[in-house]
This record gives sequence, structure tokens and C-alpha cells, in this order.
Amino acid sequence: MLIRAFIPAHITAFFVPKFNENPLLAGSLGAGINLTKGTNVFVSVEVESVLEKHVHIAFNGEPVKRKDAIISYSVAEEVTPQEFKGEVEIWQYFDFPNGYGFGNSAGGALGTALALGYYFKNKTFLQAAQIAHKHEVLNKGGLGDVIAQIHGGIEIRIKAGAPGIGIVDNIFSEEYKVLAIPLGRLSTKEVLDSDIIRTIEKEGQKALRRLLKNPTPENLMHLARDFAENTGLLNGELLEIAKEIDKLIKLPSSMIMLGKSLFALLREEELPKVQERLRDLGIDSYHICGIYNERPKVGRWIG
Amino acid sequence: MLIRAFIPAHITAFFVPKFNENPLLAGSLGAGINLTKGTNVFVSVEVESVLEKHVHIAFNGEPVKRKDAIISYSVAEEVTPQEFKGEVEIWQYFDFPNGYGFGNSAGGALGTALALGYYFKNKTFLQAAQIAHKHEVLNKGGLGDVIAQIHGGIEIRIKAGAPGIGIVDNIFSEEYKVLAIPLGRLSTKEVLDSDIIRTIEKEGQKALRRLLKNPTPENLMHLARDFAENTGLLNGELLEIAKEIDKLIKLPSSMIMLGKSLFALLREEELPKVQERLRDLGIDSYHICGIYNERPKVGRWIG
Repeated sequence: MLIRAFIPAHITAFFVPKFNENPLLAGSLGAGINLTKGTNVFVSVEVESVLEKHVHIAFNGEPVKRKDAIISYSVAEEVTPQEFKGEVEIWQYFDFPNGYGFGNSAGGALGTALALGYYFKNKTFLQAAQIAHKHEVLNKGGLGDVIAQIHGGIEIRIKAGAPGIGIVDNIFSEEYKVLAIPLGRLSTKEVLDSDIIRTIEKEGQKALRRLLKNPTPENLMHLARDFAENTGLLNGELLEIAKEIDKLIKLPSSMIMLGKSLFALLREEELPKVQERLRDLGIDSYHICGIYNERPKVGRWIG
Repeated sequence: MLIRAFIPAHITAFFVPKFNENPLLAGSLGAGINLTKGTNVFVSVEVESVLEKHVHIAFNGEPVKRKDAIISYSVAEEVTPQEFKGEVEIWQYFDFPNGYGFGNSAGGALGTALALGYYFKNKTFLQAAQIAHKHEVLNKGGLGDVIAQIHGGIEIRIKAGAPGIGIVDNIFSEEYKVLAIPLGRLSTKEVLDSDIIRTIEKEGQKALRRLLKNPTPENLMHLARDFAENTGLLNGELLEIAKEIDKLIKLPSSMIMLGKSLFALLREEELPKVQERLRDLGIDSYHICGIYNERPKVGRWIG
């Protein structure tokens, strides 16, 4: 039996990290957007007369070693019943590159948890999602992606924590297109371990307060840009490109936290000019998608 | 501008009422199912140079007086900004009859809150949903429907309270059809005020514990039926009809809490025989729908 789960990519606009020794209480405050592109996870389970369970994981069709997919391996081992003997194959396909701030590791972990939960029926939805969150946090994949992804839409994390513990709100939004430009990797760990963390906390709290007072997508983009510039994270070439885009659209563009990537909300009619400018700038790898307002999907896959 | 919101019908399988003087802390524990049929709310807002705001509500095309739609009127007045002057028209269309246990009042209240929140952009999703929950509770429309409806699917309410306060989990479920047979009204107030309430609390807690140990749709139906019979709510003619249906399908049918209504989970291939038997029993008013696994929908409506 083949199960498929779709988890939206999640981009963070601003955030406040909340560390805790208990991974279920760790998480983040902040706001972000779930996208119509993301991670598809296909899981095939074969019950076999072998002595143990074997878990195999592949990224975009290529088998990966345990250490390179430690989060999803850990999730698969915990969600699969202890007494299960057989083969579990997990195929993860990503619409965005890894490490650029699109929540791929959370997408793979959550998709794995939901697909296996669906197959084995031994966990509830929140129990499966908590396992994904836990291994994300323990392995520093991310703090707030999993809980954001289970809510969809433009989300505001108002209380940090795992699914079932943290609280996520949503902003009402009309039809916007999301432009996402992955330009490079950024080490989350390096940023979180640096002095910048104080400024991130202060600016993140300020942005959250202001967004809750005026909860609109337009206000979100202004606050995101202020956060990106005030923390110093958006600078150099990335800032130059952001300014070029800003000349052509109504709302400010901003930086995806944490990747060397940009995003913007724009109207259908603003697209052609932006695409032309991106071509002039020599940027040919970008994505245009919608806001994903649904829950993750999981179900039996009939090719 | 015309806004449309769709809110799934919500049927309760078993429950434990949790009363509280603070309506945001009141709610229920229990489990239920969100359906692909439910309530459509269309909202039209006209800004006009009048001295005050006017709210008009219609049920299935017929204007209703304030006292007959007190929950939705209260929601509309609270979500609409105080300074707004003009006309607010709210058209609610119900797939199921009112008072039979399908969460219509919550559907109307939540649909109204989300549509107006979408239009005025002055509230977040949870703020709008909390207003719907509050007026549901204050006017004894229901305790757990609103929070169940915002999660969709087969849901388990594991902590009582309003959206953002209560916690709702979900069960993974394969493709089942839901048969729903509305047979009559039942006064929620009368049941909650009677001696039966002690038994409901005891049986509801027991069912919840057992469901969390084995969170499957199949177990849910067994527990629902035990709850319905052990509380004495399922009896007489309703119980006779349930037993007739049970002869034809794998899982036990049960009673919708709280209405004189029955429901069952069944496979596509079990349908024809059940429909034939219902015809023989002279029951021609029943619904066959799917499990609604999404969030409520709200957006601009372009006829």
C-alpha cells in the first residue's frame, strides 16, 4: 500500500526563538506563509518475515544515508510500531532546494509522521505531528515549521511549542501570489549562536505585537522587511535585489528566515514586470505559487 | 463585495460537557465527525451614509427576526467594527434541518464571523472564531461545535474551550462515507438540565479514554454506540432503526448528539443495500456525504 502526504513549504517572515530543554515546549513565535508548493512524501510499507524493521529514505529519488536524513529516520522509527517487522520505504520530493529556508526538513519529517500514522493507525494526528516537531527541534532542523505547516495559510505563532501545545493563529488574506527566490543557504545554527540573537528577539517581539494590532497581509510584509533590515540579516546583494523588486510592486519584498532567499506578495497583474526584471538581473531560478490555506493532505495514493 | 464561507456540518459521537462562567473556557470533550455538507454563509456589505449599522439575516432565503437568530446577530454586531455605518446582509443556507444535531447554529455563527473577519480584516481567524464560540455558548447553541468545525475531519476534543484555548486532535481515516439520518429534534437544554448529565459525563470520559488508546474510526463507532445506549439516549424507535442498519454494514451505527438523528460510517459498496432497507422502512430523508478533512473555507464569491 502506497501512502502520500503533501506538506506545504513554510517560509518565515519574522520570528522569536523559544528554546527549552523539553523539545515539546521549544518552538518559536512569529509569522510566516504556507505555500502551494512544498514536500510530497510517498511511503510504502511491506510486512515481511524478516527479523527487524528496515527504514529506507530517499530525497528526490536518491537514497540518503541515515546521518543525512537523521530527522526523518528518527521520526519513522518512532512512529512505526516497535513490534513491526518489514520494509518501510520513504520517498521525499522537494519543490524547493534544501537549506534555503523553505521548511523542507519539517515537511519531510511531518509528511513521514502523517503517512506512517495513517498507515499504522496507532497514533492520533497530533501525536504524529509532535514526533515530527520533537526530532526537528532535537536535530536543529527548525523550531516553528511543523506547527505552522499543520495550520496552513498566513500564520502567526502566538504561543511557542509543539502541535497541541503551541498556538497558531491565521490572518485573513485575499488572493495573493507568492514570489519566492532561493539564492543561497544560511546556517540557522550560526545565526542562532551569534550575538544577533538578542536583536532578533527584540525585533521579533515588536513585529508580533504590531501584527496582532493590525492583522493584514500588507502589514505583515512591512513588518517582515523592518525585521529583516533591523536585524541586519538582509544586507548586501540580497538587499539590492529586494530593492529592485520593490520598484515594481506595491508591497515591500523581504527575506526568508533563515535562508539567503527573498519573498514577496504580489498581484497577478504585477507578475510580468517582475519576471522581466528578474530576467534582466540574471535570476532564472524562482518560484511563483499560491498561499496554501488547507491542512496537510494524507491518504492512500493511487498513481 | 460578496463573501462566502463554508462551514462543515459537525455531528457529535459522544461528549462530556464542560460548563464555565467564562464562555471562552466553557466547551466540551468528546469526538465527532465533520461532513462535506454543512452551512454556506454569504455576506454582502454595503457602506452607506446612514446613521448606524443595519444587520439583516436570512435562513435558507427567508429573513429571520433578531430573536430567532440571536447567535448570528450577536456575532455580526461584534465582528463588524463599531464605527461602521451601512448594511450587512447575511444569507445562511443549511444542508441539514435546524435542531437535529448537525451544528447549524455554530456553522451559521462561525461562517458569519469568518466572512465578516475576511471583509473587515480587523480580527485574526482565532479572534473571529472565538466570538462565534462565545455567542454559541452564551445562547446555549452548543459547546464544542465551533472548535470542532475549524479543525475538520474526525476530531477528538481533548481539552475543552474556545478556539485558541481548547485542543482538538484528529484521527487518521480512510475513505468512509457518512450516512446521516435526521429523524427529529431533541432539546439540548432539556438533556443537559436532566439527571442524565451524570451518566453522560461518566460514559463520555470512558469513551474518550478508550478512543485515545486506540484512535481509529472503527473504534470510534463502537464507543459511540456504547455511549448512546449506556446513557439511555438511544432508545425506542431510533434504536430499532439503528439495529436494522447494523444488519447490513460492518460498523455499528449510532445516534447524533444531540438530535433524534442517526449516523453510520460505511463503505461505498455497503450503500445500495442500506438505501434499499431505508426505502423499505419508509425513510426517504437521509444524507450520504464524505468526511470533510479541510479547514472552513472563506473568500470572495464570484457567482
